[in-house]
Amino acid sequence: MDGQGRALRTRRALIQAAAEVFAEEGFVHASLRAISERAGVSSGALHFHFAHKGALAEAVEAEATEVVRSIIRAARSRPGGILQTVVDATHALMHHLAQDAVACGGFELAGDISRRTNSPLRREWQHWIEESLREAERSGALAQGVCAADAARVIVAATTGFQVLGSADARWLSAQSVTRLWELLLPRLAAEHCLDRLLCAGSGPWTAPPRRAPAPTDRPA
Amino acid sequence: MDGQGRALRTRRALIQAAAEVFAEEGFVHASLRAISERAGVSSGALHFHFAHKGALAEAVEAEATEVVRSIIRAARSRPGGILQTVVDATHALMHHLAQDAVACGGFELAGDISRRTNSPLRREWQHWIEESLREAERSGALAQGVCAADAARVIVAATTGFQVLGSADARWLSAQSVTRLWELLLPRLAAEHCLDRLLCAGSGPWTAPPRRAPAPTDRPA
Repeated sequence: MDGQGRALRTRRALIQAAAEVFAEEGFVHASLRAISERAGVSSGALHFHFAHKGALAEAVEAEATEVVRSIIRAARSRPGGILQTVVDATHALMHHLAQDAVACGGFELAGDISRRTNSPLRREWQHWIEESLREAERSGALAQGVCAADAARVIVAATTGFQVLGSADARWLSAQSVTRLWELLLPRLAAEHCLDRLLCAGSGPWTAPPRRAPAPTDRPA
Repeated sequence: MDGQGRALRTRRALIQAAAEVFAEEGFVHASLRAISERAGVSSGALHFHFAHKGALAEAVEAEATEVVRSIIRAARSRPGGILQTVVDATHALMHHLAQDAVACGGFELAGDISRRTNSPLRREWQHWIEESLREAERSGALAQGVCAADAARVIVAATTGFQVLGSADARWLSAQSVTRLWELLLPRLAAEHCLDRLLCAGSGPWTAPPRRAPAPTDRPA
């Protein structure tokens, strides 16, 4: 492995370790020593890649945002209408929150009041749900009398609840939890001609989204 | 006002101020000086009532738990079946989260990862929703094929989402948000013979629940 390959691997190990420690301890209590020890790298290597703890948190959030985008791209590439895409994306998001420390850590940071930043992660998810429901409305996939914006808010609230509760108890992130949500929502939400084709359990399986290689640091390792 | 009355008033002012500061800053960043200044009391008076910041947080959580219990008692005292009671209680909870700093601060503390305690507040709400849905199932108020436990999880997730998102944007706590949730859920959730009578907008208005007087400290003021 050449120098740049080693630097990328170190950077990725640090982001992974930071995500785990942030999710366990919260941003304020997470120590750089705990992060470098968990990543198996020296304190000097950590500081070479990340000037301070906030930079590590930003890197975790950026990676988690990329996970959300990959989930959305993968759901969009599947057959089925826009409502099935939304069902699939919610399943895939919960699956990744249960499996992927970086996705989980990114959402934990987004909800960490002590971090005092406006994380783009929840906003990104919310905007995509809103746009998708508007698309469903335009294409006649919503039942009569259902407002896209209102439906989007209910879906965002429920998925945010699963994420928050799931950080302490992974059963909230289970496929069954998400399936039951859609079994209760879709009969009122979806137009009748769509309902028969919609799979509340999603059209998985949900494989890990392909991560983009993390951006290398400006300085060579 | 006698000494004990003054002590109770000071204690209440400190709990109110602490709830506000915890909700704004998070537990870790909240300073005792900011809390005593906001309460308009001396640092000595704060330490007379609360030995440390954790004791203040516990007092906020205990008061918020009492708010939740009051909301449940008030919803239960209204006419209508158990599903209407649940609808009413969700409306009342969001109304109080938007209006009452102590309720809001208590739930913020429950979700504050840096606090590292297992707050009873979310658990209390969740258990009540679960019990109520089981009661609805026993009384035939649930539609055929709907499992009480599954329905409870969806309701808990959505209301947790409203609370979490509402801490940054109060529109999530609006009566409209809660009404739209029930408009989407109840058609599948409720037995047909109940559906016509159920008011998705709740049978409010939601007045402030009567707070019990806070427990006096062991030492006289």
